[in-house]
Amino acid sequence: MVNGSQQQFFKSAGSPTPVNESAAPGRVGDVRRRNLSLVLDSIARTGDAKPSRAQLAAGTGLTKAAVSSLVADLVESGLVSEVGLYRDGERGRPGQGLELSSRRGVVGMEINVDYLAVGLVDLGGNLRFHSIVESRNRGMAPQEVMQRLGSLVAEAVAAAAVENVAILGGGLAVPGLVDEQRNMVLSAPNLHWENEQLQPGSLLEGAPLGVRLSNEANSAALGELWYGGGPADFLYVSGEVGVGGGVIIGSDLYVGPGGSAGELGHIVVHPEGPECSCGGAGCLETFAGQEAIFDAANIPDGSLADRTEQLLAALAARDPGALKAVHDAGRYLGVALASSARLMDIDAVVLGGHFALLAEWLRPALLMSLERYAPGLLEPDSLGVSSLEHSGTLLGAAGQVIRSVIESPFEFLLASKLA
Amino acid sequence: MVNGSQQQFFKSAGSPTPVNESAAPGRVGDVRRRNLSLVLDSIARTGDAKPSRAQLAAGTGLTKAAVSSLVADLVESGLVSEVGLYRDGERGRPGQGLELSSRRGVVGMEINVDYLAVGLVDLGGNLRFHSIVESRNRGMAPQEVMQRLGSLVAEAVAAAAVENVAILGGGLAVPGLVDEQRNMVLSAPNLHWENEQLQPGSLLEGAPLGVRLSNEANSAALGELWYGGGPADFLYVSGEVGVGGGVIIGSDLYVGPGGSAGELGHIVVHPEGPECSCGGAGCLETFAGQEAIFDAANIPDGSLADRTEQLLAALAARDPGALKAVHDAGRYLGVALASSARLMDIDAVVLGGHFALLAEWLRPALLMSLERYAPGLLEPDSLGVSSLEHSGTLLGAAGQVIRSVIESPFEFLLASKLA
Repeated sequence: MVNGSQQQFFKSAGSPTPVNESAAPGRVGDVRRRNLSLVLDSIARTGDAKPSRAQLAAGTGLTKAAVSSLVADLVESGLVSEVGLYRDGERGRPGQGLELSSRRGVVGMEINVDYLAVGLVDLGGNLRFHSIVESRNRGMAPQEVMQRLGSLVAEAVAAAAVENVAILGGGLAVPGLVDEQRNMVLSAPNLHWENEQLQPGSLLEGAPLGVRLSNEANSAALGELWYGGGPADFLYVSGEVGVGGGVIIGSDLYVGPGGSAGELGHIVVHPEGPECSCGGAGCLETFAGQEAIFDAANIPDGSLADRTEQLLAALAARDPGALKAVHDAGRYLGVALASSARLMDIDAVVLGGHFALLAEWLRPALLMSLERYAPGLLEPDSLGVSSLEHSGTLLGAAGQVIRSVIESPFEFLLASKLA
Repeated sequence: MVNGSQQQFFKSAGSPTPVNESAAPGRVGDVRRRNLSLVLDSIARTGDAKPSRAQLAAGTGLTKAAVSSLVADLVESGLVSEVGLYRDGERGRPGQGLELSSRRGVVGMEINVDYLAVGLVDLGGNLRFHSIVESRNRGMAPQEVMQRLGSLVAEAVAAAAVENVAILGGGLAVPGLVDEQRNMVLSAPNLHWENEQLQPGSLLEGAPLGVRLSNEANSAALGELWYGGGPADFLYVSGEVGVGGGVIIGSDLYVGPGGSAGELGHIVVHPEGPECSCGGAGCLETFAGQEAIFDAANIPDGSLADRTEQLLAALAARDPGALKAVHDAGRYLGVALASSARLMDIDAVVLGGHFALLAEWLRPALLMSLERYAPGLLEPDSLGVSSLEHSGTLLGAAGQVIRSVIESPFEFLLASKLA
């Protein structure tokens, strides 16, 4: 009878717990490591409340002296800043609140099929700069796409200098299966990329944390969780040219044994459906991907913005073809969500990308379909729409880098020679 | 930014880790608790190797003195027995191996739509007694079914007395969604049970660990994992009147936020498919459940054994109706497995129940379907068939009780006044 640990099937490993240094002599390094993370995590969780040192001590169970020493290191490293809390201008230790520094940031980046996006996200999760440009990346060589992305990143770096934000690292999301450790895009069918080696680090030379590669839908799901008010358990539906999914369970990303969970777009919703870019057939993406909807609605070829505008105009004019295309997309999305909810026991959904844009038109068919295929399983109220628009993915890509610092500040301090 | 723990979405919480008692003064109870579990878990994992105290010390990182003291309690409690290892009959401490006791056992029980089954499982996982009887439980009052089950349990208890096995508790699996804490069957559509309160404890009055309620497919999956040689990550497919699933990830059961994950039978495999007992339509169960296959193959109504025999005879005689019924079941099972593998990143499957019985006939259509809908995703080799036949579910139901003792022997010893 074997019984292993599941932590590896999620992105991160839950909350740190406090340890009193005196309880485990000889392992002070480990203890300080855990407590630094505990304090930083507490500051991150309380967010706008900006806790004082005394509040942190009460909340973590650590002594005030220990908290003060840990906070001193975190402030010196630049990760945490002190903010005065008294309106009458009175200052001094007891009145100072603590927050994740707005003077440190991470660059979030997204390569998608029809566009590139870059944003500067400070540690508190504020989007300080955001740029998105159309770019027909399908079939384009990765080097070429990375070069275009590089120009956008340069804008973000310039903005950071103006805003006085030091860049710690970056996160790059792509619409495909990635090997984060080796900086490989294993498969991105809608880009026509297969086993492509990227050099994301070259986008931000000298940034201490480098640039981390991630999957687009997973990053968008994490963006929704951390910065969009997503619940603890939900399925994020990413609507781009491809349809993707990100599964959040217990406020963490479920990635599965091989790291590629959440492929909602390739759930089979009709066994006699059309061929799919994945090699299969009848996948959700063939009915509900952007291009599938545009084509079904007879929207002529063109740029993403043009086609989207035409589709919305056709819907507003009650064009029967457009209405049917979106109705079908909603119906088949309902089939995929019913199946997903049954298998993974998920009871909330957040719609992103074009599903968010089309929510008004899509929602009635989607709800009808859920009622048809899984009556009572998903309440209408549990079907949310992302409010992050086109920034969710890059916020999540940057957020993963920020989260890694919160989980391991000791390593960051070591690198900064402060631990 | 919130980041919780995922442990609750799995049945258990991974392996214990060793702690030296001296490292954490004042928490000796906790340390002994963990180390008892560590030692017992090590004995359970090594299985047939029957480790010595010295091997346990080497394997766990505990001192030999600590291991000896912990083992003494475990032996005294009856959970662990000593076995001589020398063929020449030489005895004494250094030569003694340790194993989970074959003198302690748990009764595994299963209520299904067409039958009842009971087995006596010793701590080492050996099935010491097994009985299965046909019983048309659909629509029958739970009290009536429990009474019938009680007579079978009495046989197991009598067998235990003959075999000199003391019964510690029981596990009862039912084909529906259960609330383990409250002993409720929330929903078992194929039994026509809804919110039924059971008294499983009354089946084994006086057993120190009571009787634990569980879901049939989940128990079968755990049975396969612990006693059937299942891999660390797989989807167990339970084929009974209903079709169920149990998701094993990282050698643990994924149950999801609400505890009802794995409903493979209600994945929608054809949006224009028949109405389903769940209230939905086109679910896998409507094509691949036992009765769906019997009906599609024109097997006349009758007992489960009769219908199964007739179906197998018709298949052997190459009856086109029977062949088509099983082919369709295989095809739609392939659709559901393709979708499940995409969503949860699962790369191995174990077929149980009638899917195991029909594997020879089902497999070609299933493989073709997987190749059609998710080419390359699931290798033919990763598609296994359960070897546990009708005992898998009750082994898993009993195994969960055994596993709870291995994880918390301290509580068991306390109850036995040994800790």
